[in-house]
Amino acid sequence: MTAILSGTELGRQIRAKVSAEAAALSERGVHPRLAVVVATDDESSAWYVRSIAKTAARSGVRCDVVDLGAAATPAGITAELARLSADPAVHGIILQTPLPGGARLEELATAIDPAKDIDGANPLSLGRLTAGLPAHPPATAAAVLALLDHYAVPLAGRRAVVVGRSTVVGKPAAQLLLARNATVTICHRHTADLAACTREADVLVVAVGRAGLITAEHVAPHAVVVDVGTNPTTDGGLAGDADARSLTGRVAALTPVPGGVGPVTTALLLRHTIAAASR
Amino acid sequence: MTAILSGTELGRQIRAKVSAEAAALSERGVHPRLAVVVATDDESSAWYVRSIAKTAARSGVRCDVVDLGAAATPAGITAELARLSADPAVHGIILQTPLPGGARLEELATAIDPAKDIDGANPLSLGRLTAGLPAHPPATAAAVLALLDHYAVPLAGRRAVVVGRSTVVGKPAAQLLLARNATVTICHRHTADLAACTREADVLVVAVGRAGLITAEHVAPHAVVVDVGTNPTTDGGLAGDADARSLTGRVAALTPVPGGVGPVTTALLLRHTIAAASR
Repeated sequence: MTAILSGTELGRQIRAKVSAEAAALSERGVHPRLAVVVATDDESSAWYVRSIAKTAARSGVRCDVVDLGAAATPAGITAELARLSADPAVHGIILQTPLPGGARLEELATAIDPAKDIDGANPLSLGRLTAGLPAHPPATAAAVLALLDHYAVPLAGRRAVVVGRSTVVGKPAAQLLLARNATVTICHRHTADLAACTREADVLVVAVGRAGLITAEHVAPHAVVVDVGTNPTTDGGLAGDADARSLTGRVAALTPVPGGVGPVTTALLLRHTIAAASR
Repeated sequence: MTAILSGTELGRQIRAKVSAEAAALSERGVHPRLAVVVATDDESSAWYVRSIAKTAARSGVRCDVVDLGAAATPAGITAELARLSADPAVHGIILQTPLPGGARLEELATAIDPAKDIDGANPLSLGRLTAGLPAHPPATAAAVLALLDHYAVPLAGRRAVVVGRSTVVGKPAAQLLLARNATVTICHRHTADLAACTREADVLVVAVGRAGLITAEHVAPHAVVVDVGTNPTTDGGLAGDADARSLTGRVAALTPVPGGVGPVTTALLLRHTIAAASR
C-alpha cells in the first residue's frame, strides 16, 4: 500500500490561517501586500504568477504583478527590487524566473530586502538559513518540510536523500532536513550510481525537472517520496520527477503531481508574506 | 599502505606565493593587511592568533590584533567590525571565537564587509558560496579542498561524507565538495549508524572535535580521510578526530594532526587576504 500524501488539504489549511491573519492585520491598518516582479514573456511563468495572484486575492493578500517586460535589463530589475524593498506598503517580494539575458536569480535577488525576501532568493537568506539564523526559506523547500510534518514523517536520525542541487530547491531543502537532524545526502547528475544512493533513503526528495526519473529500482519499500518535479506533459498536464505508476505499491508514501508540493508552496508564499507584514 | 597527506609542504608553497604577491602589491603601494578581532581571554585562542600573526608577518602581510577583551559587548564588537570594514587600509577581517556571553559568530559577522570576509564568517558569504557566486569560503573548509587537490584526489562522481555540520567547517566543506560534483552526505550526532554511513565514503572529512571518533570500523579500505579535528591532549599536544593508529594500514590516505589541514588553513587565510587586497 502506497499512501498518497496530498498537499491540497494542507494548502487549504494554511490559506485559511492566512485569511484569518490577513483580516486581523487589516483591522490594525496593516494591509498585507506581495509584489511579484516579472521580466519574461514566458507563458508557463505567466500562468504561475496568475495562480499566485488569484490565490493571494482569495486569502486577503494584495498581490501586485510588476511586469518589466522581457526587454528589462539587470540594472532595471535591481532598481525595481530596491524600490519595492524601500516601499513600506510592500511586505513581500518575489522575483519571477526565467530572467532575461542569462541574468542569475541569486545575483539579482541580492537587491531584495531579506525581511521581504519571502521566497528566500537572496543569498543572504540562504546563508542565514544554513547558519541556523532566522530567515525566510524558499517556499518550495519549506513546502517539502511542511508536507512531511503534516503527515508526521519522522526525520531525526533518518536518512534523507535529495536529488537535485538547485539554489531554489535542492540545497535549501537539504539544509532544512539537516536542521531537523536527518542525515542528508545530496545527489545530482554526476552521482555515479543514483539508484544505489536513493535506495538508502528513508525520505527521498526529488527536485530535478526530469519526468519519470525515479522508478521502482530507485527506492526502498519503506521510503517516503516527495516529488518536487513539475514537468509539462504533451497533453497539457503536469508530471513529476517520480514515475508514480512504477512507484505505486513499491514505496510507503508518495506526493502526487499535481496536488502535492505545489499547493503547499503557494500557500507558504502567502504565509511568509503575513509573517513579514506582522513584524 | 596508508599515504600520509601532509599539509606542511602545501602550506609552505601557498605562503611562498603569498610572499611574492605581497611584495608585488607593496611595490604598487598596496600593503596587504589583516585585522583579527579578539574578545576573549581564552588561552588556546590567543595561541592561534599569535601563530596567524607570526605567519602573516613572515609572509609580508601585516596583521593587527584588535583585542577588545572578554568584557566586550556584541554592540562593541559589531561597531569595531564596521569600523574595520570601512577602513580602506584593512583588506581582511577575522572575528576570533569564542565570543563573550554566548554571542554567535554568524550573527556578529554580518557586520564584516563580504569583500574583506576572508574567513567566510558572514552568512552572506556562506549563502553566496552555496549559490555558486564568488565569495571567500571559510579557510578551514577551503583547506580541505586544497589538500585533496594537492594530492590529486578525484572528487567528481565520488561519494564524500562529511561528519560534523558546523557553520565554519562541515557545512561549507559540504558545499565545496558538492560544487566539485561529489555526491555529498552530511552526518552528525543524530546519525543512526555512523559507521555504516562513513564506510560509504570515498572521501571522508571529519570535523567534529572528538578525539579518536573515527576508527577502523568506520572506513572503507580505499577511503581518503581528511581530519579537521584539533583536540588538545593531556601532554600538551594535538589529536585529530580520527584515531590514526587504528586507521593506519586500513585506509588509502589520511591527513595527520598536527601538520595536515592546520598549516594549509593559516596559509589560505593569507592567500584570501592577498586576493582581497588585489581588487
